[in-house]
Amino acid sequence: MIIIMERNATLENVQAVTNLLESHGFKVLVHTGEIYTVINALGDKTTLSANRIEALDGVKQIKFIREPFRLASRDRQSEDTVIEFENGVKIGGANRPVFMVGPCSVEDYDGLLQVAKAAKELGCQFLRGGAFKPRTSPYDFDGLGEVALKYLADAKKETGLLVVTELMDSSDLDMVCEYADIIQIGARNMQNFKLLKAVGKCSKPVILKRGAASTIKEFLLAAEHIMYNGNEKVILCERGLKSFDNSYTRNLLDISAIPVIKKYSHLPIIVDPSHGTGQRYLIEPMAKAGLVAGADGVMVEVHHNPACALSDGKQSLSIEQFKQVFAKLNRLIDTLHLENTVSEFCE
Amino acid sequence: MIIIMERNATLENVQAVTNLLESHGFKVLVHTGEIYTVINALGDKTTLSANRIEALDGVKQIKFIREPFRLASRDRQSEDTVIEFENGVKIGGANRPVFMVGPCSVEDYDGLLQVAKAAKELGCQFLRGGAFKPRTSPYDFDGLGEVALKYLADAKKETGLLVVTELMDSSDLDMVCEYADIIQIGARNMQNFKLLKAVGKCSKPVILKRGAASTIKEFLLAAEHIMYNGNEKVILCERGLKSFDNSYTRNLLDISAIPVIKKYSHLPIIVDPSHGTGQRYLIEPMAKAGLVAGADGVMVEVHHNPACALSDGKQSLSIEQFKQVFAKLNRLIDTLHLENTVSEFCE
Amino acid sequence: MIIIMERNATLENVQAVTNLLESHGFKVLVHTGEIYTVINALGDKTTLSANRIEALDGVKQIKFIREPFRLASRDRQSEDTVIEFENGVKIGGANRPVFMVGPCSVEDYDGLLQVAKAAKELGCQFLRGGAFKPRTSPYDFDGLGEVALKYLADAKKETGLLVVTELMDSSDLDMVCEYADIIQIGARNMQNFKLLKAVGKCSKPVILKRGAASTIKEFLLAAEHIMYNGNEKVILCERGLKSFDNSYTRNLLDISAIPVIKKYSHLPIIVDPSHGTGQRYLIEPMAKAGLVAGADGVMVEVHHNPACALSDGKQSLSIEQFKQVFAKLNRLIDTLHLENTVSEFCE
Amino acid sequence: MIIIMERNATLENVQAVTNLLESHGFKVLVHTGEIYTVINALGDKTTLSANRIEALDGVKQIKFIREPFRLASRDRQSEDTVIEFENGVKIGGANRPVFMVGPCSVEDYDGLLQVAKAAKELGCQFLRGGAFKPRTSPYDFDGLGEVALKYLADAKKETGLLVVTELMDSSDLDMVCEYADIIQIGARNMQNFKLLKAVGKCSKPVILKRGAASTIKEFLLAAEHIMYNGNEKVILCERGLKSFDNSYTRNLLDISAIPVIKKYSHLPIIVDPSHGTGQRYLIEPMAKAGLVAGADGVMVEVHHNPACALSDGKQSLSIEQFKQVFAKLNRLIDTLHLENTVSEFCE
Repeated sequence: MIIIMERNATLENVQAVTNLLESHGFKVLVHTGEIYTVINALGDKTTLSANRIEALDGVKQIKFIREPFRLASRDRQSEDTVIEFENGVKIGGANRPVFMVGPCSVEDYDGLLQVAKAAKELGCQFLRGGAFKPRTSPYDFDGLGEVALKYLADAKKETGLLVVTELMDSSDLDMVCEYADIIQIGARNMQNFKLLKAVGKCSKPVILKRGAASTIKEFLLAAEHIMYNGNEKVILCERGLKSFDNSYTRNLLDISAIPVIKKYSHLPIIVDPSHGTGQRYLIEPMAKAGLVAGADGVMVEVHHNPACALSDGKQSLSIEQFKQVFAKLNRLIDTLHLENTVSEFCE
Repeated sequence: MIIIMERNATLENVQAVTNLLESHGFKVLVHTGEIYTVINALGDKTTLSANRIEALDGVKQIKFIREPFRLASRDRQSEDTVIEFENGVKIGGANRPVFMVGPCSVEDYDGLLQVAKAAKELGCQFLRGGAFKPRTSPYDFDGLGEVALKYLADAKKETGLLVVTELMDSSDLDMVCEYADIIQIGARNMQNFKLLKAVGKCSKPVILKRGAASTIKEFLLAAEHIMYNGNEKVILCERGLKSFDNSYTRNLLDISAIPVIKKYSHLPIIVDPSHGTGQRYLIEPMAKAGLVAGADGVMVEVHHNPACALSDGKQSLSIEQFKQVFAKLNRLIDTLHLENTVSEFCE
Repeated sequence: MIIIMERNATLENVQAVTNLLESHGFKVLVHTGEIYTVINALGDKTTLSANRIEALDGVKQIKFIREPFRLASRDRQSEDTVIEFENGVKIGGANRPVFMVGPCSVEDYDGLLQVAKAAKELGCQFLRGGAFKPRTSPYDFDGLGEVALKYLADAKKETGLLVVTELMDSSDLDMVCEYADIIQIGARNMQNFKLLKAVGKCSKPVILKRGAASTIKEFLLAAEHIMYNGNEKVILCERGLKSFDNSYTRNLLDISAIPVIKKYSHLPIIVDPSHGTGQRYLIEPMAKAGLVAGADGVMVEVHHNPACALSDGKQSLSIEQFKQVFAKLNRLIDTLHLENTVSEFCE
Repeated sequence: MIIIMERNATLENVQAVTNLLESHGFKVLVHTGEIYTVINALGDKTTLSANRIEALDGVKQIKFIREPFRLASRDRQSEDTVIEFENGVKIGGANRPVFMVGPCSVEDYDGLLQVAKAAKELGCQFLRGGAFKPRTSPYDFDGLGEVALKYLADAKKETGLLVVTELMDSSDLDMVCEYADIIQIGARNMQNFKLLKAVGKCSKPVILKRGAASTIKEFLLAAEHIMYNGNEKVILCERGLKSFDNSYTRNLLDISAIPVIKKYSHLPIIVDPSHGTGQRYLIEPMAKAGLVAGADGVMVEVHHNPACALSDGKQSLSIEQFKQVFAKLNRLIDTLHLENTVSEFCE
């Protein structure tokens, strides 16, 4: 940790910082330049909150050397985390990218089953569908609740697909755990710390979606909340950021976040081009972009009849369209042996 | 509602949109230009989700004429909402701006009481303090919980100040209601819809903080969630946005949001220059800016010893500093009769 | 064009808008809803500036149906623009993506020639290098000027590579035209309209880089400035946007802009992963992402000795590194027949 | 300057950095922590570009201690710069805030004179008006050119107001200098370094508008370009930033930039609430906000007939409206003795 003092900081100010640091076991070195004084502190940051230092008089800025996330960091674990499911499906590492497919919200069993059967036949591994839907407006459809969870479980029984569904409130945790193989935390809840704590205490893998205005650091610190509470099976998901340009896309999908996170964290990361763009015609090119950039999986909204979807129809593929897209993505995966694409000189 | 069709939309596409609209009671008018076809629909949007229309083939874009928020809108209620408390304090309308003062997190009773007594003496109306603190990192102090609520209640008994504190999880609602006069929903929870629903069903006034990357529309729709569930006593709070420049400030305080929201909504709005800037020296100028722009109150972090604060010390004023700032803000309020500053031609 | 009137607009306000529109030859239709009045205007927007309408009393908002760019639009020209060079190289349409390779700034002839020879041998088509460099700080190296242009011309003579270089001021246009095969307009000058006008009047193809905070509309309107002045040989270049997160990357490369622009414009578009990320290790994955998303070419910074580069060394590949990356990108292009990847249902 | 090395940096990497720094006269101190090595370098950064260091292998990040701008910094000059004009008008320091008033673009002499006379009568000091207008679309009115400059000069002769007008191209510099008392550089040209150099070599004061996506550092470095070329009479102007929310305002006016810049630079700064919001009804509250935050002046668009303005009518006040607003702003200035509002503890 490096503390930069204000131009007009006094010797007393510097001493106060030094004292605080030393009282927490830091080794301290002070450099006084022509204009600014800089304090180097070597020690374990988790024992002393930066807020304490910042609040001292004369402190201009604190610069951290180590990343603030620890459990999620490659500094702690250099090999990729691989998450394995009961049926042998694996996410992360050198494993082939997985596909998570299904409607935005579960609306009826027949439609859901059509999608699930098609997905299974193609070789997808996961069925996704919302039972509880966060909606910006209170006037919009917000999901069928437990009925939807039962439909998902039935479709799993029928097809063998694993189930991914969103948890919105800690009070529903037990219910969702009963039906889901992966619990999804939505982008709007990425910093709902009570919810992160709750899923941190359960044993199911968690998909954590990046908040629409979250930095990569905040994203990995949100994962850290889950891991810190005991659950290390976290799958990250890039799903697009707020930007100043939303004329043509709903969000700005941050493809570069995938290789950046691969460098700094051992956790798997998947890409969601449906929410990431909000446009059907962009799902194919952006799924490809995510895959060549290193994504461990793709989450796509597929609806048996997008024109009648109660939510997100505009960014859903029909079953027929998905078949076409899937074939192309699969060919891309086959040919490129994507798992080996990171160049040696990158590290 | 106006539906703009794609350049290559077919007559069948147009007909499908028309049919859907008419089946929901809309009056429909179709205009076919040289290149694009435009469909005008007059009717009640709440009966038909825009998602349904967007998902139809050939639809390029939907343009809403009415604001999507209803209960929060000036279209519904032209006079300002005024929220009144047991002791006669009022927020909103032509009432004098209020002050909400206190530490970021409640740490000990003595310090809290020092701040509360000073605030009361100056004429402030509210004591703010966190019992549950959302923290980006799991390694940071996250509040004393119920003990802090009790300290706040004791300080209220001692000084008569009303209590504002944050609720982070719906399971704590009853506990927080027992101690608080205003329940605060933090910026990170602005779209935690389960939490909005929960406070919507209780009778206490709610301060809703604007999410760091929320549009004004999303902000008012979050208020709408609370109102739709039965609680119309919503106080909005502008507390700064994420921006591409965070070298000198933690957030970018959106002062213009205050007069914009005053134009489109009847709800009161306050300003938080502490979180809004993250810098002690910016509290005074930005509190002033908020007040002259029409804010109904100011929320400021004041700590009895900022250099020892466990959170947000850098953006807290000491009691002595607050006295100086308060005097200047008060003089500004006195002189300008702020409540009358909106020009006639603005409407 | 649709004009939405304010809630409290008067009949006179509506009449004034109608009169203005009709006096410019628009066909006008007025719809009066319960709360808002909407005016539909059919006609040629270029004859009447929107500013004129907006300024009338009672006008809330104007919604354009047609895209504001005309010459750059697919509405005008459905087939892709292909730009052909003297030596038969082509950019755009179904042609194989091109490579533009070289140092950020030209520093000495020997180093430049090393890069050029390696690039030629691999099969690249263009040599890029800056003679005039825009620098955020006046204390940084800003290019060798005409000497650098001569070096580029010499390297062209030696290798046959076509030359791409940036023009920063209209007064240098003739000089740059003498040496360059493509004139580059940098991101910071994307809305330097005098410069756009100048290159619009010359006959050389132009690479127009997207401004770091420019919307896609503004980007295409900047291209429109060049085309409107007579030069239709415009190649767009996505090179990354400003974002709230610059801890790990210099810019946020907007990969989705590529397929979006392909849908709305016939102009070719290339991707610059060097400036787009600012990180050497991200060049490969982001070049791949750009290519699978439909880019017509890749611009990469390659330096004979990045550790000694006077500018942008951190985002430059060495010649050896570029050979490795190029091989992978080329294999990606070979296998996928990228030109055919846009699905039929996307239109 | 502090250089943070990558986790896996070798001793050779550290040595290479040390050698480079020492060869440029820096004093170097190396600290090796458990995971990361940090290098402290004391010396004059202007002798060695950061790019050179960044490009070395194993360098993770460079942290600057001193602000990169020098001439514009308070570190160099602690007292405020005050710019004085021939007629005794002064901008900056403890002087009363000035008003710059006039139409977005000069359209005809009669209208201009009406505005100028009214402004003079009220006590404004400057007449502003565009002769050359940057326009996003090539189809919009882009100014009358030299004719407009003559109208401005005539209005000056008639009223005594000083003239502010924009320069868009260095080739027009002499012409503009002949007529203008202040040369304005527009937001889109903030990083047009050739233009900055050109005005840096002339003797007229310059208003430099902040780019819509420029950080405060980039803004002050753009000022540095002008000063470095010899012209220290720079007046900064905050005029609003691009943001993710443009439903209600054209830009997001960054009021906090005013006190931040006052802290770090000695240059005067004014506020432009017309461009900063794009909405007539927001001019008054945002001008007030700028003034209480410390602005040295206000630039406002005033048109003799906004409903007929060829550009920016929506954000222009009529003469009558301006009179009302001016009276209120003036009262605010009178009462508050704004020049004395910065608290002692802020430094």
